[in-house]
Formats: sequence, C-alpha cells, structure tokens
Amino acid sequence: MILFNSDYIEGAHPSILEALTRTNYDQTPGYGEDKYCEEARNIIRQQCNDDTLGVEFLVGGTQTNVTVIDALLRSYQGVISADSGHINVHETGAPEATGHKIIALPSPDGRLTLEQIKECNESHWNDPVHEHTIQPGMVYLSCPAENGLTYTLAELTEISEYCRANSLYLFVDGARLGYGLQSEGCDLTLADLARLCDVFYIGGTKVGALFGEAVVFSDKELKRSFRYAIKQHGGMLAKGRLLGIQFAELLRGGNDCLYFELARHANREAMRIRRAFEQKGIPMWNGSLTNMQFPALTKEQQSRLAEKYIFEVWGRYDDTRDIVRFCTSWATRSEAVEQLCNDIREL
Amino acid sequence: MILFNSDYIEGAHPSILEALTRTNYDQTPGYGEDKYCEEARNIIRQQCNDDTLGVEFLVGGTQTNVTVIDALLRSYQGVISADSGHINVHETGAPEATGHKIIALPSPDGRLTLEQIKECNESHWNDPVHEHTIQPGMVYLSCPAENGLTYTLAELTEISEYCRANSLYLFVDGARLGYGLQSEGCDLTLADLARLCDVFYIGGTKVGALFGEAVVFSDKELKRSFRYAIKQHGGMLAKGRLLGIQFAELLRGGNDCLYFELARHANREAMRIRRAFEQKGIPMWNGSLTNMQFPALTKEQQSRLAEKYIFEVWGRYDDTRDIVRFCTSWATRSEAVEQLCNDIREL
Amino acid sequence: MILFNSDYIEGAHPSILEALTRTNYDQTPGYGEDKYCEEARNIIRQQCNDDTLGVEFLVGGTQTNVTVIDALLRSYQGVISADSGHINVHETGAPEATGHKIIALPSPDGRLTLEQIKECNESHWNDPVHEHTIQPGMVYLSCPAENGLTYTLAELTEISEYCRANSLYLFVDGARLGYGLQSEGCDLTLADLARLCDVFYIGGTKVGALFGEAVVFSDKELKRSFRYAIKQHGGMLAKGRLLGIQFAELLRGGNDCLYFELARHANREAMRIRRAFEQKGIPMWNGSLTNMQFPALTKEQQSRLAEKYIFEVWGRYDDTRDIVRFCTSWATRSEAVEQLCNDIREL
Amino acid sequence: MILFNSDYIEGAHPSILEALTRTNYDQTPGYGEDKYCEEARNIIRQQCNDDTLGVEFLVGGTQTNVTVIDALLRSYQGVISADSGHINVHETGAPEATGHKIIALPSPDGRLTLEQIKECNESHWNDPVHEHTIQPGMVYLSCPAENGLTYTLAELTEISEYCRANSLYLFVDGARLGYGLQSEGCDLTLADLARLCDVFYIGGTKVGALFGEAVVFSDKELKRSFRYAIKQHGGMLAKGRLLGIQFAELLRGGNDCLYFELARHANREAMRIRRAFEQKGIPMWNGSLTNMQFPALTKEQQSRLAEKYIFEVWGRYDDTRDIVRFCTSWATRSEAVEQLCNDIREL
Repeated sequence: MILFNSDYIEGAHPSILEALTRTNYDQTPGYGEDKYCEEARNIIRQQCNDDTLGVEFLVGGTQTNVTVIDALLRSYQGVISADSGHINVHETGAPEATGHKIIALPSPDGRLTLEQIKECNESHWNDPVHEHTIQPGMVYLSCPAENGLTYTLAELTEISEYCRANSLYLFVDGARLGYGLQSEGCDLTLADLARLCDVFYIGGTKVGALFGEAVVFSDKELKRSFRYAIKQHGGMLAKGRLLGIQFAELLRGGNDCLYFELARHANREAMRIRRAFEQKGIPMWNGSLTNMQFPALTKEQQSRLAEKYIFEVWGRYDDTRDIVRFCTSWATRSEAVEQLCNDIREL
Repeated sequence: MILFNSDYIEGAHPSILEALTRTNYDQTPGYGEDKYCEEARNIIRQQCNDDTLGVEFLVGGTQTNVTVIDALLRSYQGVISADSGHINVHETGAPEATGHKIIALPSPDGRLTLEQIKECNESHWNDPVHEHTIQPGMVYLSCPAENGLTYTLAELTEISEYCRANSLYLFVDGARLGYGLQSEGCDLTLADLARLCDVFYIGGTKVGALFGEAVVFSDKELKRSFRYAIKQHGGMLAKGRLLGIQFAELLRGGNDCLYFELARHANREAMRIRRAFEQKGIPMWNGSLTNMQFPALTKEQQSRLAEKYIFEVWGRYDDTRDIVRFCTSWATRSEAVEQLCNDIREL
Repeated sequence: MILFNSDYIEGAHPSILEALTRTNYDQTPGYGEDKYCEEARNIIRQQCNDDTLGVEFLVGGTQTNVTVIDALLRSYQGVISADSGHINVHETGAPEATGHKIIALPSPDGRLTLEQIKECNESHWNDPVHEHTIQPGMVYLSCPAENGLTYTLAELTEISEYCRANSLYLFVDGARLGYGLQSEGCDLTLADLARLCDVFYIGGTKVGALFGEAVVFSDKELKRSFRYAIKQHGGMLAKGRLLGIQFAELLRGGNDCLYFELARHANREAMRIRRAFEQKGIPMWNGSLTNMQFPALTKEQQSRLAEKYIFEVWGRYDDTRDIVRFCTSWATRSEAVEQLCNDIREL
Repeated sequence: MILFNSDYIEGAHPSILEALTRTNYDQTPGYGEDKYCEEARNIIRQQCNDDTLGVEFLVGGTQTNVTVIDALLRSYQGVISADSGHINVHETGAPEATGHKIIALPSPDGRLTLEQIKECNESHWNDPVHEHTIQPGMVYLSCPAENGLTYTLAELTEISEYCRANSLYLFVDGARLGYGLQSEGCDLTLADLARLCDVFYIGGTKVGALFGEAVVFSDKELKRSFRYAIKQHGGMLAKGRLLGIQFAELLRGGNDCLYFELARHANREAMRIRRAFEQKGIPMWNGSLTNMQFPALTKEQQSRLAEKYIFEVWGRYDDTRDIVRFCTSWATRSEAVEQLCNDIREL
C-alpha cells in the first residue's frame, strides 16, 4: 500500500536527521536558549526581512494555535475563524479549554473574506448590549486553508488593514505554509506575512521536519510574554535545540532553502495527480494548487484506487460522488505518483 | 566548560538516533496509532507485569503533568503536592491554568508523608463548610523528588492504600524515574508503580531520549478519555511514531534494557562525585543516591569549580554556604567526572 | 412610556417583598443551609413528586447555566445546543470560559430535535479520530426557548430516552419555565421535567421573584458536588435565605401556587396582544403561546407603536418587516395591554 | 440562642427593604443600566472625591474577587495574597478555576507587608528562568483582613507606590470595608482607597444590605472591559436596580451615611465585647478594633457561652485555649451584647 492520506506519514528529510546526529553531543542550555535556536531565529528574521521579529519554536500545531490565542486574548475575547478552521473542528475544543470562544463564520471555501470579518466585528459593536456577547479579539486564518486554498497578497493586506484599524489581532496558521507560499500563483512571501500579521507560524511537521512550528511575531505583548505562555501550555521543549537545529536546516538559504524546495517538490507531484484526474474528466472539488488535491470520486472509483492507495474521504460531493483527499509531501516518491497517475487513467 | 547543570544538555543516546534513522521512510498512521507505539506499549506492559495497562506517549513533563491532572480531576478538585513539587513551582501555573488548585504541603525533604496527606484530606472533610474549600482529588508525588530522594515500597504502599480507601487518585511524576528505580537501595519496580498508582510516567527526556514521557495507567476513566485530553492539551504528536520508536528502543530487554543501563551509569557517576565531596569534608544537603547531588559550597569553592564546570545554585545552606546541584546523565563521560573529582580534592 | 421589552423590568411580586420583610430579623445560618431554603426544597420536591431530588438555589440564569455545565462535564466534553441557545449567544462565552465548547446546531425554530441530537452524537462516535473533536457530553434545551416555543411531553421523552441510552446529560434551562408550563396546550409538568432531565431549573427572576433560579436534579454526581461548583463559580449567596424565602413563597400550593398564577396572568395578556396583531392581519413570526410575542412589523408600524411603548427589535422578517418582541410578565397591567391592543387596531 | 457567628445572619437594614418596596413598580432597564445604579455610582464617586471612577455592582464577594482577578490578569499572571486571604482559603479554588495561580505568602497577622511583596516580586524577576514560574501580576489585600486588622494610610501608600512602579495591580477586598474604615484609629478613607488602588470594593452584604458589592476602579482596562467580565462570570444581575437602590440608600450622605453609621454601631458593640473579655483577663488573639473579636477561650469557657450564644471556633491558641470569633453587625442588638458581657463577667 502507498499512503497518500496525509503529509506526516514519514519521519524527516535526511538532512534533518543528519544535523541532529552531527550535533548530538554538543552541550547546550535547554528551553530554546541555545545557539541553534538563536541561529534559526536569525535565519527566519532574514527570510522575513525584519530583524526585530520575535521567534519561538513549538512542537505541534494545536499546541501552537492554543498558546498564541491564549497569550494574546483577554478572558472575555474570542477568535473569529472559518467554521472549517482547524481550531474549530479538529482540536478537541482546545481553544475553548483555555477559555476562549470561537466565533465561527460559515465559509464555503474554507477562507474568510474581509466582508465577513467586518460584518461580524461591526455587529458586535453595534449591539447595544455588546457585553452580553463575546468580544472579537482576533482573526484566525489558515494559509493554506484546510482545503488547500491560499490567500492573495491583496486579500491579506486588506484584512490586515481592517484588523489594525479595529484592534483585532491577525494570526495566520501556517501548518502547511511552505506548500502555500510555493504554490503556483501565490504572491505571498514570508516577509509579507511578517509585515501584515501580528503573529504567524512556519509549519515544520508537515514540511520535512520531525516536528516543530516556528512562531514569528511583531506584537509587543507577545515579545514580553510568549515564553511564559509556551511554558504554561506545556509547549516548552526541554531540549529546545532540537527545534533550532531543524529550522536552521530547513530555512537556511533564502528562496533556495530546503523548506521551499521540499514544498515545491510536493506541489509538483500534487499537480501531476490533479492533472491526471482532470484529464480523466473527474471533477475536482476546488482549485487547490497546493499539496492537497480533492477529486470527487464515485464509490467504484474509490474502491479501485483503494486497492493500492490509502487516501482520506473528506465529505460528500453529490449523490454519486464523495470528495476524497490525496496528499503529497516532501517524501512523496515520483515513481509512486507515476503509478497513481497510471491507475487514474485506467479508472 | 563541562556542563553538570542538568540532565538534558545533550541530544539522545546514539541507539535512539539510529532507530529513528532506520525507520525514517516507513509510512505509518499518525497520532500514536502506529506499530512502533504499539510495540512500545507492549514492552512497557511486560515491564510492568500487567497487560491491561493503558499507555500513551507525550512529549514533555509539564505537558504530561497538566494533562493527567486535568483529565482526572473534576473542576472543583485540587491536587495535593509537596510545596517544592515541580507542578507547584516550575510550571508557570500550568495546573491552575487548567482550573485546578494545588494544595501545597510544606515538605522539608521534598517528599510527602502519609500523615501529611491524611491530615490534609481529613481536615477538608471535617470542615463543616467543606464546599467552601477545594476538594482534594489527587495526590501528586515525584519519584525521585526534585531533590533526588525516592520513596520506598513500604511508603508508596501505605500512601496507595490510603488513596484508594479515600477516593484520591495517586499520580507519580517519573520525569527522572530511571535514576530513582536504579538507585542504591531503592526497592521499587515499574510493576510496583503500575500496581500502586492510578497513573505514573516513565520519563524519557532526561534519561536518554530526545524527548518523551510514557504515561502508564490502570484507571478506567483515563482509558476512556486520555487521548481526548492529550489532544486538547496540544500534546498529541502528529508523528507519534517518534515516541514509540524511542520508548521501544529504551525499554526493550527487561532489567537490562537501555533505559535502566543509562540510569545506572548516571547514578554511578553521581555517587563518585558525592564521595569526592564527602571525602573532602564538604557537607551534603541531603542523602540523594540518584543522579543529582547537592553539596553545600562556600562562595570560594563555587568560584573555583565554576572556572571549569557549570552547575546550578539551588538555595541557601547556611551563612557561609549555598546548596548547589551537580547532575549526571546517560551522557556524562567518566573522564569528565574523574577530572571533576580531582578538582574537588584540590578545593 | 410603557415597557414591554422584557420580563424583568419591575421588582418582585408584593408577596415576595412582604415575606422578606416579615422574616428580616430572623437569625439564620448562611449559604442556603437555613430553614427557609429547606422549606423551599421540600415544596419543590412535592411539586415534582420526588422527595429524593437535589435542589439548590442560585441568583441568575447565566450563572446557573455555567455552573451546571461545568459541574457535570469532563474537561474534554462539550454541550449540544441550538445555535440560538442563550448559552451560545448571550452569555459572553461563559461556558467556554469554563473550558467547554458548545456544539451549536442550526435550529430555525430555536428548539432541538431528536434527529439533530442523534446525528450530532453519532457523527462524533463514528469518526475514526473522534478524540480530535470535542466529545458530546450534554444536551442543553431551553423550555420555553428564546423564541417562546416549548417542547411537548412526547418530544422531551424521546430526547430523554436517547440521552440516557447514550451517556448524555439532559439539562433544561427553565429561565422562563413558568410561562412555558402554563401555556395553552403545553402538556409538561414539573414532575415530568424532574423525571426526564438530569437537571433543570425553575426560573424565578423572570416570573415574580426579585432574582433566583431553583436548580432541581436527580443526578448523583451533582448531589455530591453541586455545592462545591456553586461556591467555585461565585454563585453561593451569603444570605441564601433570600432565595429560600422567595421560592417557598412562589411555589407553595401545588398548581395554584403564586408562580403558576403569575405565569398564567402573563400568558393571558400575551395572548391578547397576539390576537390583536392577528386580527389586524399582521404576520406573527412563530406560534409562541407564552409571554413573548413576535409580530412582524413594518418600519412605520414600529415608529407608531414606539411613541408609547418600548419593545425589542428581534431580527429581520422580510424586505419590509422586522420581527419585534413584546413581553408580558407577572407585573403587566391589563389596562396597559388594553391600551396597546387599541393602538394595534389603529395601526 | 443568640447568633454572633457571622455578620450575615439577618436580612437587611429596614431602610433597604423600604427602598426596594417603594421602587418596586418602577419600570427600568436591566443589567445595571438604570437610574438607581447611576445614582449610586455618582454617590460613590462623590464619596471617593473622583468623578472619573468606574463603578459596577456585583452580588457577592467570591464572585467579585474572581471577576476582578480574571478581568485584569493575563493568563500567565498570578496574584500575590496572604496565605490566609479569602481567595486562597475559602473560595473553593475559584481564582484558579479562572486559570490564575495564587502566590500565597505566609502572614501571621493576615496582612501583607511591603517587604514581602517586594521580595516575592523581585525573586521572580531575578530568576534567570522566570518564565518557568508564574508572573506576579496583582497584589490582593483585604481591609480589614479575615482577622479584623486594617492597614494604615502609610502602609497602603507605600504598597501602592511599589505596585505602580512595578506594574502590579493593587486590589483591595473590602467585603467588610465599612467596619474597617470606621474602626478606631483607622486613618483610611474611601477617597484614599480610590486614589491608591487600581480597584477595590465596598462590601454591602456584611454591612446592612441584602447583598451586593460595589466595585470601584480607576484602571482603564477595567473601564473598557469590566462589564464583559461580569457577564461572563455570571455576576450581572438582571434586575441590576436592586443593587443600585441598596447602595444609594447605604452611601448617600457623606460621612453620616447609613453605611458608616451601621459600621460604627457594630464596631461599638464589638468593642464592648472586647473590653468585657479583657476585663475578665481573657487573652485576645489580636488587636482587632473592628466588628470581629477573637478571644482565646478554654474549652470550659466555650461550653458555658455556647449555652446561649453561637460563635465560631477559629483555631488553636495554645494547649488550653482555642481562638473563637464573635461577630457583630449592623443588626446586633445592644441588649444582646449587654447580656453577653454579663455572661462573660460570670465566666
């Protein structure tokens, strides 16, 4: 069986393991205060064109989302999210467990629009008894979203401007950021994100690392307090160096860094899969250009492919078809994709 | 400089890195549902002589403490702990951040006695308005404690019996469990812990792993719900296999397993340091037989040793001396200890 | 101006004030352990035909909702509610502030159906990674709902049976319970609620008391712990007698008790208003038979009535009309309603 | 039996009940936005000599403490309190339930000194890994403390100055504030408190009201957000007017207001009791000049008095004596005190 069901089914890119092995006996302080973390911080600041940025490293995505939300919001504030947002669906109520309501807005395409955010925020403040409802305190976007779609620079810019003018934090979940930034036609860069968001993260777990998310922030309150929040939420890795070593390895080298290369590889393979489905006349659920592709397959097509491949059933498309998800990653072998494409042609 | 300031200043035992490298391209499901985790679970059940035990793997200690406490306690229950307990001092209020008060009892030697637990619990229930005070719901012990001392089988047995008779969960923090179990004269085994506690953990981070804590539990509620709690607290590692691979590597092989061997090595080196201080006539703060040793040094002695070694100042001993901590670990080189002992003799 | 905008715009029924004055100098213990609370508990048990019920008194509705939810649910459990439920909309995220996600189901008529509850619960348990999503732990209904509609005995019975068979607590918010139980055609009684729910409450604030909600429960866990939860959530009134005195006064006398009489009065007046609108040919938003009526008025009709009356704009009905709410209460004067009906006829 | 065991065993001063009865049929908006609350706010601002103060009304003390703490502190901040502070002992872990650790300092006399606060705060910031410990964010004092002792203007001034210079909120719990301010030799005024604290409250429940605490604050963040916090913590009374009416009644009239008169009455009676014990040669536990007196009685003395009076056993004094508490209140009858004094003389 070949697994296409997610982008975290292998270990890490070999360079990562080599770097960990190479540095194994160095003695360093714990908790992210070592030279490797410092190096990784500086590489990230360079990639973002801003050497005043705060950078901290956490282990996983849910942990990162919750820690950022709880560190920034006041107890009576909530976070605006697409109803399909990871924080609203697949985190076992983790943000609520820290006390913060999610203000979930319906979003057919998994993304939020400026209009939605505006309407939600204004309807709160226009309510004469607004203190009876949760106060919007943050906008949470995923880039790419759960369905592989990204934001454009123009979209993110106008959302950012609205947030800044209205005291809303802007937080971008970048668990799959590499795949998004390196997708065809995406005009966003790390520097744009650093400039437009109060806080975002560069996901490592799904893009070549063993684990790890690099949180980047310009917000002053986070600079003062984020390490408290990380520790309190159980996210401060004792051997923090493991995160620094990995992110330095991944992000060193500007646009040619390993992180972007691996993302481009995954996207290329994903697009081959997309084209194979399209050429077969199989409808695609959406226009994702990233490493996740969502063909709409009949039950029979699903059974045929399930003989050799594992993929995820995502939802209902219409009376005869389900949306399924095929994921590629840094580790996807081109031969496996070649074989899959052949099998798609035979459906 | 040679670092003796903690037991998490290097990476991991080379076998761990080799195992990670060897398995790197295997495709597995995520979130601890892979074959490596299953193997590690079974090894642990065997080591504990009980194949009905629940076993789950988390990344770090604070995360583990908080997740266990919050998973087991009702909202109006608190946890009895020594005032020097890690949860009370060094977790940035993490248990309280999940809503649970710590009922901190004074403990000169870092351990709790049955009498203290009993008095605390009874004074609650004897209070005619007991619902105005937090209800004790759990006893938290560390073995070894922050100061390196362990419990005896007899002590743990009587505490366990009292807890079971009084509806108190018994939870043992084993962040340094290997060092405790393998210390001279410690008559506890993993099987004893599994039998006497509702839940305990086998700390990997400080005993040879890159990271990881293996939580072992017999409690039914935890069996039903602990994976929810792990996910909600951001502790569910996407590539859960990394934990399974490490714990299988560490705990395979009964009493000769790598985990215990590494602990014995660290303890032996710690005892050499202890004897060097004792022979020099330097007072030791306590009778720790584990990998942490606490000599009471004058300022001058501290400066002399600080020229070559890094160690931690722990507290005040008397008017002229401070307690300092020297830690050994799986990675401590015998030559470094030899050199340190020589320098102690020259003080 | 005459206020019809809510049912808590006056003080309390005069008998309540007289009872408070009459007992003012009695010396009693605090915190609900006095003889008046005991009397009120017994009256309620009698009204509910079950002398084993737990009964505790709280001050307000949000406080009661949050305390019940947090007392019963485990940290990883959430509460199923209509999206228009008070806990989801008008409590400033209070349930989430205690850590519990609300699983909000769309509900055009403000009520939940068995089918919705079933589908929601089953979709959780059928999810292969259900621990990544919040576990349903409770069903929250309001009777009457925010829009004045009630449940029938048959509906509540089938929901209760499903909840019991599926380990879901059933909690009925009865902030306006009197108006519901005494409405035309409602076949529910206090005894039915006590039998079918794990916990419900009899709202005093909106039905004649100065303040107060009487929580009635058969659940064992609540019997053990609810007073802890009340105290922890700041809901334990020092002079608890004030609640006992009020509820004894309100509920003494079976079906002829003051509470039901006041509710019948309010409902009668509300139905007069309803009929006036209907006779005028003004569409009613829904079929509420309780003290809240929701005509759909044009802007002009609103302005005309707003000259003499205060009422609440509830939402949009269609392009030309808004839904507005007229509330009656125990304190509504029949002459005021007469005048309003005349003015409706003149619209 | 005559009850001296607390100051909340009767209803309310008759003027309060008369005011509630007089205003009963007025129609007002809810939630503290009525004219009575506005009047009470202005009276309090006048009493405090500062018309820019924020004033909100809550029902009870625990609720008030928790709401203020949670509204002001960030998630990673804790509150410094005497270990005997009400928040640390008698609130069922309510502050922790909102996520905030209490940093409890030992306090033999129930009060905190500047030195203690300073040492606690500095030891946090001097810790090189301070993010591993809770960050002090607030100082909580009670005036009078649980044992009846008050602070002087000089003490409160120096604590206030330190707090302001060190970004610590200063919060004074005034559940019994009237008794404190009106006690012999207390040189504090409401205006001093308003000037020196970020937030404090004027306790009504124990000083003549049915219930109610008036929170007074100059802090900007509270002005923006306190009403959200009140609602979220279930403390926003639907018929908020009940609080406004009571506080207007209590505080109208400058230094001759009912609140202060009632406090002076209770203190006078308490001092008569104190003198009776002293004249009898019975040791007093402390120098309280407020409405709570703590004689140290032998078991026999306790039994003798227990035949006619109810009082509270407070703790152990020495091998032969217990500390007991006698409370007076606004409702204490002089004849009852006369009788008690006679019985003391006969001991």
